[in-house]
Amino acid sequence: MEQSRVGVIIVAGGSGKRMGGALPKQFALVGGEPILARTINAFRKALPASRIVVVLPSEYIEFWKNLSARFDVAKHSVVEGGAERFYSVKNGIEALSDAVDLIAVHDGVRPFASKEMILRTVDCATTNGSAIPVVKAVDSYRVVDGESSKIIDRNPLRIVQTPQIFAAPILRAAYDTPFCNEFTDDASVVEHSGEKISLCEGEYTNIKITTPEDLILGEAIAREKDGKTL
Amino acid sequence: MEQSRVGVIIVAGGSGKRMGGALPKQFALVGGEPILARTINAFRKALPASRIVVVLPSEYIEFWKNLSARFDVAKHSVVEGGAERFYSVKNGIEALSDAVDLIAVHDGVRPFASKEMILRTVDCATTNGSAIPVVKAVDSYRVVDGESSKIIDRNPLRIVQTPQIFAAPILRAAYDTPFCNEFTDDASVVEHSGEKISLCEGEYTNIKITTPEDLILGEAIAREKDGKTL
Repeated sequence: MEQSRVGVIIVAGGSGKRMGGALPKQFALVGGEPILARTINAFRKALPASRIVVVLPSEYIEFWKNLSARFDVAKHSVVEGGAERFYSVKNGIEALSDAVDLIAVHDGVRPFASKEMILRTVDCATTNGSAIPVVKAVDSYRVVDGESSKIIDRNPLRIVQTPQIFAAPILRAAYDTPFCNEFTDDASVVEHSGEKISLCEGEYTNIKITTPEDLILGEAIAREKDGKTL
Repeated sequence: MEQSRVGVIIVAGGSGKRMGGALPKQFALVGGEPILARTINAFRKALPASRIVVVLPSEYIEFWKNLSARFDVAKHSVVEGGAERFYSVKNGIEALSDAVDLIAVHDGVRPFASKEMILRTVDCATTNGSAIPVVKAVDSYRVVDGESSKIIDRNPLRIVQTPQIFAAPILRAAYDTPFCNEFTDDASVVEHSGEKISLCEGEYTNIKITTPEDLILGEAIAREKDGKTL
């Protein structure tokens, strides 16, 4: 699989209500760089010749052009997001040319995906048609049902990460369907189309930054990662 | 509920095989202090008059006495751990006098439990007889079944933390039972005895340090917390 044949969709369509701040979280600085810039550059590092499409809320496209001009950010194109993540990914797929063999969909707020993990997921998708990175759940879990709750077995539980990578025809065909509420990630859309999902090894540092606590953790991971590259 | 009537069992019986290092993780330094010292002191801060019992592997009791003497660690007694967490907690319960009304069981490798969260869990246990802190799951999850896997609904999913706090008679009665493999935490033991478990709000920074990545995150949280107390 040549790297030039991978299309990357980075989904940063969220308006960041969960962070409580005015600025959506994909633009927050971590280790002195916007999270979204780190995310984009993670793919440049792993797949230097890939085509990168970033999906943004329409009201932040101009803002991002100005912000990203001040940092070292890999070449990418920008498309407008939709009301749901589903529509944002759909717009990203449409923006990618038919020349790509694999499409990777990645959260804009997951800036720490390592080169090794991205390449491992590409390999698994090349072999199996689909690949999503997962990590084992180490906590204990309960399921709430109204006023009561019960413990569940954590052994078969896996935490799902991104990039979720698919053979382009599989992802395009899967997204040619009406939206439904059960579509929480790309794997669920592809699964709905009848395709099997293959799992590969994710990594615990590949965190999604959604809360102020995550930002603290992100600073630490950034420090560790930036230190290693000196 | 007077604070003098709370007994705290800090379970640090693990031999730390998951960390890959020679020294069990409860003794690793985070922010310049042993994790276990931070954990013990979190309870001194929240419940200054509580009785604290620390459960340790027998081969590390002497080591801990020497290590803890070099740091500012709240007064506590030490008892020997068992082959399973269940037996370690049982030894802790036996070491607490009948004068305690509530018993809190806490992981030795969760050093960042805040005063607010500990007091909230005490309040909830005082009212309901049992209380465990939980946080909402923000990731996507799949359940693995042999070669295949399927997505599960994360909305009712809660991640369980400690301290798990119980009316002393409820916890004592619950632990008066033979060990079984389904006992993954204290709530599961108490539930097995027929008692209801009440949930209260945990906190995302109340992490359990079990992997090298957790240590990195722990350093960041320690820095943030220590900065705030200046």
